[in-house]
Amino acid sequence: MRPVSARDAAAEPQDLQLTELYKEFDALGLIPLWTEREDLMPQSPQPAAVPHHWRWADLYATAVKAGELVPVGRGGERRAISLANPGLPGLPHATPTLWAAIQYLGPHEVAPVHRHAQNAFRFVLEGEGVWTIVDGDAVAMRRGDLLLTPGWAWHGHHNTTDRPMAWLDGLDIPLSSALNTEFFEFGPDTLKDRSTPERSQAERLWAHPGLRPLSGLADTPKSPLAAYRWEHTDAALAGQLELEDEGHEGATAGTGHAAIRFSNPTTGADALPTIRTEMHRLRAGATVPATREVASSVWQVFEGDGAFVVNGERLDVTHGDLVTVPSWAEVSLEATGQLDLFRFSDAPVMEKLHFTTLPASVAERTTR
Amino acid sequence: MRPVSARDAAAEPQDLQLTELYKEFDALGLIPLWTEREDLMPQSPQPAAVPHHWRWADLYATAVKAGELVPVGRGGERRAISLANPGLPGLPHATPTLWAAIQYLGPHEVAPVHRHAQNAFRFVLEGEGVWTIVDGDAVAMRRGDLLLTPGWAWHGHHNTTDRPMAWLDGLDIPLSSALNTEFFEFGPDTLKDRSTPERSQAERLWAHPGLRPLSGLADTPKSPLAAYRWEHTDAALAGQLELEDEGHEGATAGTGHAAIRFSNPTTGADALPTIRTEMHRLRAGATVPATREVASSVWQVFEGDGAFVVNGERLDVTHGDLVTVPSWAEVSLEATGQLDLFRFSDAPVMEKLHFTTLPASVAERTTR
Amino acid sequence: MRPVSARDAAAEPQDLQLTELYKEFDALGLIPLWTEREDLMPQSPQPAAVPHHWRWADLYATAVKAGELVPVGRGGERRAISLANPGLPGLPHATPTLWAAIQYLGPHEVAPVHRHAQNAFRFVLEGEGVWTIVDGDAVAMRRGDLLLTPGWAWHGHHNTTDRPMAWLDGLDIPLSSALNTEFFEFGPDTLKDRSTPERSQAERLWAHPGLRPLSGLADTPKSPLAAYRWEHTDAALAGQLELEDEGHEGATAGTGHAAIRFSNPTTGADALPTIRTEMHRLRAGATVPATREVASSVWQVFEGDGAFVVNGERLDVTHGDLVTVPSWAEVSLEATGQLDLFRFSDAPVMEKLHFTTLPASVAERTTR
Amino acid sequence: MRPVSARDAAAEPQDLQLTELYKEFDALGLIPLWTEREDLMPQSPQPAAVPHHWRWADLYATAVKAGELVPVGRGGERRAISLANPGLPGLPHATPTLWAAIQYLGPHEVAPVHRHAQNAFRFVLEGEGVWTIVDGDAVAMRRGDLLLTPGWAWHGHHNTTDRPMAWLDGLDIPLSSALNTEFFEFGPDTLKDRSTPERSQAERLWAHPGLRPLSGLADTPKSPLAAYRWEHTDAALAGQLELEDEGHEGATAGTGHAAIRFSNPTTGADALPTIRTEMHRLRAGATVPATREVASSVWQVFEGDGAFVVNGERLDVTHGDLVTVPSWAEVSLEATGQLDLFRFSDAPVMEKLHFTTLPASVAERTTR
Repeated sequence: MRPVSARDAAAEPQDLQLTELYKEFDALGLIPLWTEREDLMPQSPQPAAVPHHWRWADLYATAVKAGELVPVGRGGERRAISLANPGLPGLPHATPTLWAAIQYLGPHEVAPVHRHAQNAFRFVLEGEGVWTIVDGDAVAMRRGDLLLTPGWAWHGHHNTTDRPMAWLDGLDIPLSSALNTEFFEFGPDTLKDRSTPERSQAERLWAHPGLRPLSGLADTPKSPLAAYRWEHTDAALAGQLELEDEGHEGATAGTGHAAIRFSNPTTGADALPTIRTEMHRLRAGATVPATREVASSVWQVFEGDGAFVVNGERLDVTHGDLVTVPSWAEVSLEATGQLDLFRFSDAPVMEKLHFTTLPASVAERTTR
Repeated sequence: MRPVSARDAAAEPQDLQLTELYKEFDALGLIPLWTEREDLMPQSPQPAAVPHHWRWADLYATAVKAGELVPVGRGGERRAISLANPGLPGLPHATPTLWAAIQYLGPHEVAPVHRHAQNAFRFVLEGEGVWTIVDGDAVAMRRGDLLLTPGWAWHGHHNTTDRPMAWLDGLDIPLSSALNTEFFEFGPDTLKDRSTPERSQAERLWAHPGLRPLSGLADTPKSPLAAYRWEHTDAALAGQLELEDEGHEGATAGTGHAAIRFSNPTTGADALPTIRTEMHRLRAGATVPATREVASSVWQVFEGDGAFVVNGERLDVTHGDLVTVPSWAEVSLEATGQLDLFRFSDAPVMEKLHFTTLPASVAERTTR
Repeated sequence: MRPVSARDAAAEPQDLQLTELYKEFDALGLIPLWTEREDLMPQSPQPAAVPHHWRWADLYATAVKAGELVPVGRGGERRAISLANPGLPGLPHATPTLWAAIQYLGPHEVAPVHRHAQNAFRFVLEGEGVWTIVDGDAVAMRRGDLLLTPGWAWHGHHNTTDRPMAWLDGLDIPLSSALNTEFFEFGPDTLKDRSTPERSQAERLWAHPGLRPLSGLADTPKSPLAAYRWEHTDAALAGQLELEDEGHEGATAGTGHAAIRFSNPTTGADALPTIRTEMHRLRAGATVPATREVASSVWQVFEGDGAFVVNGERLDVTHGDLVTVPSWAEVSLEATGQLDLFRFSDAPVMEKLHFTTLPASVAERTTR
Repeated sequence: MRPVSARDAAAEPQDLQLTELYKEFDALGLIPLWTEREDLMPQSPQPAAVPHHWRWADLYATAVKAGELVPVGRGGERRAISLANPGLPGLPHATPTLWAAIQYLGPHEVAPVHRHAQNAFRFVLEGEGVWTIVDGDAVAMRRGDLLLTPGWAWHGHHNTTDRPMAWLDGLDIPLSSALNTEFFEFGPDTLKDRSTPERSQAERLWAHPGLRPLSGLADTPKSPLAAYRWEHTDAALAGQLELEDEGHEGATAGTGHAAIRFSNPTTGADALPTIRTEMHRLRAGATVPATREVASSVWQVFEGDGAFVVNGERLDVTHGDLVTVPSWAEVSLEATGQLDLFRFSDAPVMEKLHFTTLPASVAERTTR
């Protein structure tokens, strides 16, 4: 059924009067609903953002060139190159709410100290040797680690080695822009603390399973655990698949798909209040059937090869590649060999605002 | 201190290479942070939306004309004329997250049944005689009432009288658009239930202070109380000022400013998960000193005359006038006579996403 | 299957050694589990408390006599006569967690000011003319009202009339005793504030359905609404039955049984953190089928006649009568005429400690 | 000031009538408040339970004897010998809410399968070789481990070695008795699963810091982590003291006192809904100044020597010794050498029921 819009109704004798009325609307700063309703209130999400695939090889190559041409310093603050969703022209937004970038720090470079209301994390695809100092706590960055910089924490980075290092930055910049919640403050231009501890203070307090320091009994909306180390993530994923091998299929439902969510140990909720972060492992040959969700996400291949099928389009991915999945897009996964995937999304936003609980009728109608 | 941006650094010999690099970025769907940082991450919110003042007299006059020229029906769905913030050209958005409109229903007209994921309310400036049927419950609309249509509730309206009726509609359409969470479904073209009960079923179950039906013990994110009646709102505001008169200044801090928030009786939280709704009463001559908040809002004068001073600009307001206040704008109020004000805002969004708790240093730095 | 207990095993040759061992246990302050297990860990709750029926006529008559013989004053504090469950000999406990008493205040008598950690309420069966001053707020007590005195609130009462007044007091004294959480403090011996307002300050701020004063946005574990008035309770119950009459059976499931819970408007939870309070109305002839719950409760007939059947025993009740229902007792109700019942219980304790969610197998096994 | 009680007032001419009245009370199942008020509502907690010290050497010796004389089997269920607080004569209760026992399992013995509503944990002072099977998951028990058996989980134990093993059992049996919330069910008389995995399924899913399996996103009131291993607890305590050594005094406030709470990774709350469990480490010579709390607890020395001072009485303790601390008792600690202490308490009960937030005036008045 094609709805008969008021716009059609306007193609009638009283056109002239209507034209006058619309001019009046315009002069008064008004817009009628009836001509906009279908765009404003579509039957299901119609994101301008599109599914898109960025190759790590391309990203890394441009980052290397930027490393030669562009200094890191005050004002620009970071040598970060952001994914610009082709559906959101001119905007450095991976999705309407998420910002994703490759950040590149050359040998012995320092990224100056600042803080901002936006929440941030870093996920390390490869390399090591950079420390990020978060609110005075030196946090090593190494392959496979997830490092948090919650909103309003002071932070700067320094590369202690002769080799460059690059990683994925994720922030809620577009969300913060859409909501006008931004705050930013410059800190010192350089870093005093050049210590290089194996483990941050935060980890020494918090990286013990189920153990909460008595000095940390106040719940915080943002995780106090600054670093989620690859050794733990890897062990958690491996553990789920081992259980599956032994016939305990609770964790994976027997699908060969293990997954963990990075969580805030003070509440069990997402590590950051606006960004969900997860790690997935698919056995060689495993698949994840098509699903949709009211949330947008960005995936990065950590290790292995495979394919995303997003809204019917197949994207073959390999080490480091990034894929954006807009809200309500249908996505399925296939693993060629063992496939490790990092994912971040805005799902906590949808859940907190209660935009996720839709009647089955809609889910059925809109799922193929 | 003016930060030295990477953009400046580009005005150097390696210009050519940099130009090449930027072309490459463009080709690959990438945007560098260092040229965008100041826009993306400003020191404090820089809303495109502006403070603006709409006169009810203008709105009502155009609504009357629309009533003559534009039918209400399937497709356009509602004869609603939305406030279009001059800072957000082309968009029918009052603020980046809020939609506000005058809706006008002529004598005996019917607005067809639909439902949508977006949350909605109606606030009645004047008049009566329309019933809105929300999920099968006939809810009378009368002067001063706040009526809820939480996301995904079926609803249609009918005017039982020979007179037109107009009211304020508030929705989270822009937020839902920004997040791509929209769902919409058409219901019957007309309304079967033409009953006109004084009180809705929802009120008979829930409009008893502090009393919860045993059939309603499951908490819901959206208030089950479909109507907040003016007689209660008026009494609550009057009560606060009477207490002040008697020397009990707890409720008003002795300022002559009474205020209530419309809340969800199952949780005590805001009536809608994304929209805060409040009613304010200022005694004649009372003022509300300048404040800022990380949230945008829309005010409507219910009764009386006074002035808003927003970011230094004085807006003299009267019955029915609407004022938009963007995030972080500084706003103060003055009441000429007794001034009753309705307000709605996106503050629950900011609170749930933890974008509201900023260090004092920022508040001080950015408050005049 | 009768379990073979270790006690039986002890009736063997090594008796002597065992006797020695048990003496040693005793000397060391030890008790073996194996001889106690069946008592300590029964298959389902085996309360020492029993179902019991107190007639209001008896209570009132003794209260009148006490009024003649026993002054109200410092030390004894209140002329309250408590229900002593026959299953808990020597203890003034209605159930293992709840204290219930008739309190009687003669013409122009004053009950001195004190406060305590224990939570208290008063429910008024009949009469009026007493004001209770709760943290400086004068609260009228009238027929059908529920008045709160949350833990640690200062309170005293005064009778402004020439007639005595009696009411039901409910507290969590036994719970507080069992947990050793008691605190008590004497206030002034008399009451300065002899004002007699129709409505308390608390009501003027809070007794508006769904409306929350902006001065009261901090959630509190104890309801800020000092008085739940009969006019509202009565209207809420009547409303549910009217809806049933009109074919909207949501509230009553078509059973002729309406009920409300008194709730904390800041959270929607129970009015007091340890005591659930409810009002029930059964149509003439209506019944409530047998149920059990892991919670103990005390019922009082507010109006009408009917019967409780508790663990198979029929108790015919009338105006003012009180009935105790221990944990896991099976209780059903019958209304002769319209029957209004007040109930309070310790269910919030069980829920907060997660002692209520038992597998169906147990529920089935233990329900007749 | 000694309050003048109504009991004194009774020593007057009307004695006879009063005696009659009291007889009448008794006949009707009533008890007056005014003669009981001081006992029922003391100025601060007056626990019948007393501070007490049990020596592990004594406990272990009696357990060995019991191992020779008393079989483990159906009915008695466990060879557990419980601490009987001398202030609670005849009751096997360590405090009014907590049950604590030494459980002893001889070589190759099996404790049969059962489940109960009461929450339980085991803390292992020394030894290894027993597995407890919790809801089908085989959990190794080793020195320093905390093992959970949340309410209603099936569980049985088996000793796989030629040596006996003994450990501390903690349950909320007295609380459950006081509240009449008990349920108990026998399972198989023996254990089919005799597997001896190093790590339980629960650990493989949950013992990864901050990582939540996607199959475990539903919050549970009871921790899904069946075992908290000593290696993690030890590392967490050591980490706090290392930070202190390095000048980061956040965790210990520079007192030489490190401590962790065992928590539920799905919520950050206590591992069990009714029992708080903690591990403390004091440096040699460190002290913990005197404090009180509205909660009762049981301490066990895990390693080292030191002293408790409880209500002024000094208790010198060593490896394995147990000390009970009733509600509101004043307790301070001293460490001779490095002192590791396990503690469990009913503090979550007090917090959930809001019995812990007392005005400073009381704290001051009642603290020496």
